[in-house]
Amino acid sequence: MRLQDIYKNLRNDLRLIERELEASVHTDHHQLNRSAVHLLEAGGKRMRPVFVLLSGKFGRYDIRRLKSVAVPLELIHMATLVHDDVIDDAATRRGRQTVKAKWDNRVAMYTGDYILGRSLTIASTIGDPEVHRVLSRAITEMCRGEIEQIRHFYNYEQSLLTYLQRIKRKTALLMAVSCHLGALVAGADPDHVRRLRLYGYYVGMAFQITDDVLDIVGKEKELGKPAGSDLRQGNVTVPIIYVLMHGSQQDRERIIRYLKSAGADPSLDDILDRLRGSEGIAWSYRLADRYLDKALWMLEGLPDGETRESLRLIAEFIGRRSY
Amino acid sequence: MRLQDIYKNLRNDLRLIERELEASVHTDHHQLNRSAVHLLEAGGKRMRPVFVLLSGKFGRYDIRRLKSVAVPLELIHMATLVHDDVIDDAATRRGRQTVKAKWDNRVAMYTGDYILGRSLTIASTIGDPEVHRVLSRAITEMCRGEIEQIRHFYNYEQSLLTYLQRIKRKTALLMAVSCHLGALVAGADPDHVRRLRLYGYYVGMAFQITDDVLDIVGKEKELGKPAGSDLRQGNVTVPIIYVLMHGSQQDRERIIRYLKSAGADPSLDDILDRLRGSEGIAWSYRLADRYLDKALWMLEGLPDGETRESLRLIAEFIGRRSY
Repeated sequence: MRLQDIYKNLRNDLRLIERELEASVHTDHHQLNRSAVHLLEAGGKRMRPVFVLLSGKFGRYDIRRLKSVAVPLELIHMATLVHDDVIDDAATRRGRQTVKAKWDNRVAMYTGDYILGRSLTIASTIGDPEVHRVLSRAITEMCRGEIEQIRHFYNYEQSLLTYLQRIKRKTALLMAVSCHLGALVAGADPDHVRRLRLYGYYVGMAFQITDDVLDIVGKEKELGKPAGSDLRQGNVTVPIIYVLMHGSQQDRERIIRYLKSAGADPSLDDILDRLRGSEGIAWSYRLADRYLDKALWMLEGLPDGETRESLRLIAEFIGRRSY
Repeated sequence: MRLQDIYKNLRNDLRLIERELEASVHTDHHQLNRSAVHLLEAGGKRMRPVFVLLSGKFGRYDIRRLKSVAVPLELIHMATLVHDDVIDDAATRRGRQTVKAKWDNRVAMYTGDYILGRSLTIASTIGDPEVHRVLSRAITEMCRGEIEQIRHFYNYEQSLLTYLQRIKRKTALLMAVSCHLGALVAGADPDHVRRLRLYGYYVGMAFQITDDVLDIVGKEKELGKPAGSDLRQGNVTVPIIYVLMHGSQQDRERIIRYLKSAGADPSLDDILDRLRGSEGIAWSYRLADRYLDKALWMLEGLPDGETRESLRLIAEFIGRRSY
């Protein structure tokens, strides 16, 4: 089985979810419709719906119940992206202009608020209070993640733990919740629910660490945004933290000077070259690998079969992707 | 009893809530701390906490339980204000610069997200799933209200019903929920809970209608913002809707021309003068009075006493306030 086969197997249900996403953001407000559709069309891998569907296969697979959590989860993800682009002052994402760049911060703010509102409206039709509890905690933590991101912009003294907590809130949590809720609404065995949630969490951590490495070593064409965007925006990621802790004094000083200048210092390209040649890259990949190993370990306790194999493939893909 | 006496009677508990509000928005992120404190210091009447506390008196009054809903409700209110100011492009509120004017839309966006996140975090400590259900529906509806506001900017064809639904989501709902949750966590009689919720809803409708009239007839000094802000921002309120429906052809044409120009037409002051002299003002006040009558009617079914008298006074104050 290859990665495409997973999408092929889920094709009909993913199409259904895509249609519901389109219908759910549709509005007769012209500007909102344009910005929400722009965001939706930027696409992405729809990883959260994929996790919901695959996790649902460990119980009674009912697409109607599964889409009632998959759609709000993907909408929450979209809402955070559009606000994150304001926070990060990002001009492009996935090769397209961001909402804030195409229009402005105000439009991005209310587009995000709108999509969050749509997400909550759809989620409110779910009867299970446990689902609500899990969802609202996730939203809370993601709001905190957004703020943690701002708080530590240009902070060259942050620890690895600070970074890990931030990416947990920013990325891993919603993936964990996707697996959790997919399994939960399907009535899967509680131990399987727990394992799937942890699988999603570990995969999410590995995904974000890899993302942060790719931001430094990747090509603009593959990234869909300029390389080095994180550092430019003051977002201090794990390869940078590694070099700040273990790099040569010269490298450390250059990075600190850059961060102290809040991006005004003209040495970004030079710093990026140094980071690319540093131990920080290999060390970060090893860190991601450790999370992937944990994710694979969680799968060990799940029933063998095609679905488990799909989750294994996703974890492995994340480990070796280059975009 | 006068209005001040209500605040005096609740003084200690309101102080406690004020301290919790301060503590809950405090952060070591410099910008966030400044903007959140700026927002907190703008103050306001803390109507939502007052409603929570007074409603709690119809059951077992326990300030610890009551503040666990009063604080998140006031924070939700603050979060919507700061985003609303971005939507409305408002420069001042309550006589102070808005966050978006003092800093910018980006800061206003993340300050609102932060305060909403803080609100949800505090709310998540509440055990009762019914409280969560009520709160998350309120947040959902308020997100929808924000969008309805944008959708109908400069729309001169909107009906009175559209307006009423919008102010319900924007204002009345959170007041209804404040009364509802105060009574609910105090374990009040279900019929009293229902009556208090409706009281809050009717008072909220009257409050917003009065607010919208004052925006036209009030003085800048008392309003804490320039008169006519609503029309300038394209926010079509009830006196304007009345004149669009029943005014002279000349008045209707002037307003439509202004709204069609999206505020570029220079005739705002002239239109405001005409609105002030129109039937729309008295008609809107009568509409507010009808809601207040309904609010007072709801109080009839509650046990007689000082608390009921306080709620009556608040409703009456809203009916005759000039700021």
